[in-house]
Formats: sequence, structure tokens, C-alpha cells
Amino acid sequence: MKRTTIKVYRDILEADGQWAEQTRELAAAHHVAVLNLIGAPGAGKTRLLEATASRLEGRLRFAVLEGDVETTRDAERLHALGVPVSQIITGGACHLSAQVVHTALRDLALDQLDVVLVENVGNLVCPAELDIGEHAKVAVLSVTEGEDKPAKYPLLFRQAKVVVLTKTDLLPHLTFDLPQCLAYVRQVNSQLPVFPLSPVTGDGLDAWIDWLVRTVRRAVTS
Amino acid sequence: MKRTTIKVYRDILEADGQWAEQTRELAAAHHVAVLNLIGAPGAGKTRLLEATASRLEGRLRFAVLEGDVETTRDAERLHALGVPVSQIITGGACHLSAQVVHTALRDLALDQLDVVLVENVGNLVCPAELDIGEHAKVAVLSVTEGEDKPAKYPLLFRQAKVVVLTKTDLLPHLTFDLPQCLAYVRQVNSQLPVFPLSPVTGDGLDAWIDWLVRTVRRAVTS
Repeated sequence: MKRTTIKVYRDILEADGQWAEQTRELAAAHHVAVLNLIGAPGAGKTRLLEATASRLEGRLRFAVLEGDVETTRDAERLHALGVPVSQIITGGACHLSAQVVHTALRDLALDQLDVVLVENVGNLVCPAELDIGEHAKVAVLSVTEGEDKPAKYPLLFRQAKVVVLTKTDLLPHLTFDLPQCLAYVRQVNSQLPVFPLSPVTGDGLDAWIDWLVRTVRRAVTS
Repeated sequence: MKRTTIKVYRDILEADGQWAEQTRELAAAHHVAVLNLIGAPGAGKTRLLEATASRLEGRLRFAVLEGDVETTRDAERLHALGVPVSQIITGGACHLSAQVVHTALRDLALDQLDVVLVENVGNLVCPAELDIGEHAKVAVLSVTEGEDKPAKYPLLFRQAKVVVLTKTDLLPHLTFDLPQCLAYVRQVNSQLPVFPLSPVTGDGLDAWIDWLVRTVRRAVTS
């Protein structure tokens, strides 16, 4: 039975790979970048998108794809701010599949967009394993989770092109060791840029937005 | 292909169910309870176990099974405190299988224990789906994750017998709405006890320990 299991997982990954490839072709044809935000539940992904949305106005045209297990809460939060947002309900699945992302992307007016920000299901493990055809995975980690998470869940930090370290406004109340956290990130992926920031105070947001704008422009003109 | 996929997932669940059943028989034969701690990365599961261990001395005989994707960090933390601990490395898998838990349990001196506390991989989604033969799933949620998590990730809160709400010492610095969080828990599972606590200040730990001791005594004498 073990052999069958391995075979089918491979089939799933192959099928997903084909959808990811179609997403890359779709994105290239419409000159739109796709970013895949991955982090634990409560890492602050939606809050980051709220803060990012208000700062992207006039710099990039964007939409959000919200991935959730059951509810539309996060999409409603962004919709309330006027952000163009679609919701994907996975119905229990722990990550967004390449197929469902592709289907949702096809429904967007891609010619009127520079970037689609995909918020994956809150999960530091499973979404990191999957290629959804994104230009970059964005690892979102909050300082309240502890500095050792890049060492304990290394796959995401190996796959990501950038780390956003959120909730830095809480640092005075925590024993979080920022230099140690950065050292753990470098151990796993020595080239990975890390942007510590707080959507509450606004600290650090400009550097993240600059990275985002630069990365999207490079993706859509290449 | 879809049909094959469903079939194999069912096979995996059936095989896991058999291991879970064997774990239940093993636990019953040795009068030992098995608790399965589930929560997001950084929810404070290991910190909770550290605080729990020191308070269980003289009340219950216990051991810990640590589940991690790659490292032995959490087991080392508990070992440093003198807690009997075994480490399970899942090698990338997002949850502990019933089989690996059963194998690890067999290596413990079960006759000298009242309870085995299993810390699952940091993940609010996948471990909730799986029966590892435990007496109870313990949902571990930190206040820094936001009050809406029971609504957004309801499966765990449907399956759990108790919620431990950690890091309450940080409440003065957050906008976390505790009554709203409790309301979300009740929407999903109206009978679920919730223990807000802080291992940092010690607040709330006694009530959790009392629940734990009562639950273990009931499990091992029934």
C-alpha cells in the first residue's frame, strides 16, 4: 500500500505542477505578478495586506485572493477597505491548490492589474511545499511566535524570496531575540531579505513596500 | 484520477485508524492517558508543557512526546528541565501519524506513567483531522493570534475537549477581545471549557492543572 500512496502523491504534485505552469503563462501574458503570502494562523497576514493596500495606491494596481478553510472573514475585512478581493474557501484543505488559484485568477481583470497578492491558508508547513505558479513566496512571521521558527519550520524559509517579520510593536513586551531570529533565517537561507515591521505603528512598512514595488516591476517587465 | 486520490486518502485514514485503535488498547492495558496538544507554530505549546511539568510533580507521573518537522529543539528545552521526553521528527510531514505515535509510546515505560502529553507539529489545520488514539485533543491558542481563530479554523475546536488560551500576560498590549473569542469558541462547540492562562505570570495555571489531573484520573480508572 505504501507504494500506491507515494505514487498518488506524485500524481497530485504533477497535476498541480501543470496548473502552476498555466498560471505562469497566464501571468506572463497579462504582465501581472503573483505573490503567495504564507504564515501561521494569526501571523498578521491580513493585517499586513490592509496596511500594504493603503500604501500601494497610485504605485501598483493590485487585487487580493484570500484563502481560508471555512469563512469569508478576511475577504470581508479587505473589502471594507475598498480592496478588490476574491475569496477561496478550501473546504477543510490546509493549503491553496494550484488549480483553485488558477481558476480564481482567470476570473480577475488581469489586464488592469500589476500584482495579485494571494493570502494562503494560515499554515507554516503545507503551503510551503506547493508551487502555485507564483513569482515569489512571501514568508510572514510574527515576533510573538518566537525567534526559533525559521529553524523549526525551515522549508518555508528555504522557498521564500522574502520574510516579513510582523508585530514589532510588541517587542518591548516579549523576550524575542531579533538578532538570533535573523541568524536562524540566514542559516536556512543566507540571501533572504527580512523586513521587520508593524502595521500598528507603521514602522518598517516603507522598506517592505519598496521591495514589493521593485519585485513586481521586475516580474512584469521580464 | 480524482477517484484514485480519494481512495488512497481513505486507505491512509483507515490504516491510521487501526494504529489509533492499537494505541487505545495499549493505553487501556497500562492505565495511561494520552493527550494530544494541537496549536499553531508559536502558540506556546512547549512553554505550556514546561509550566505544566513543574506543577504536575507529585500529582501525576508523566512523559512528553515531542513532534517536530525537523529539529529537536523543543525536546531539548523539556529535557533541560528534567522532563522525560522523546522526540518524533516527521521529516517534513505536517502532523504526527497515528503509527509513529504508537511506535514511540511502545518505547516508554508506560506502567510507570499516568499520562503521556503529545505535542503535535505546530499546525492548526492538519493534526485536527487525525485520530492518534488520544483520550483528548487539547487546543492551544495564543491571544496574539487574534480572537477569530476558533471561527476561522473550526475543526480543531470541534474535535478538542478543552482550549488552553495562552499568553494572557500580553492582553494589555493587544486589541484582543476575550469575550468575543469565547463566543466564537461556543459557536463552534458550546460545551468546550476554555482556560485562559499565562506561563509567564502563572495566572490561570491552577485551573488548567486541576482539569488535567481530573481528566487523566477519569481516563485511567474508567
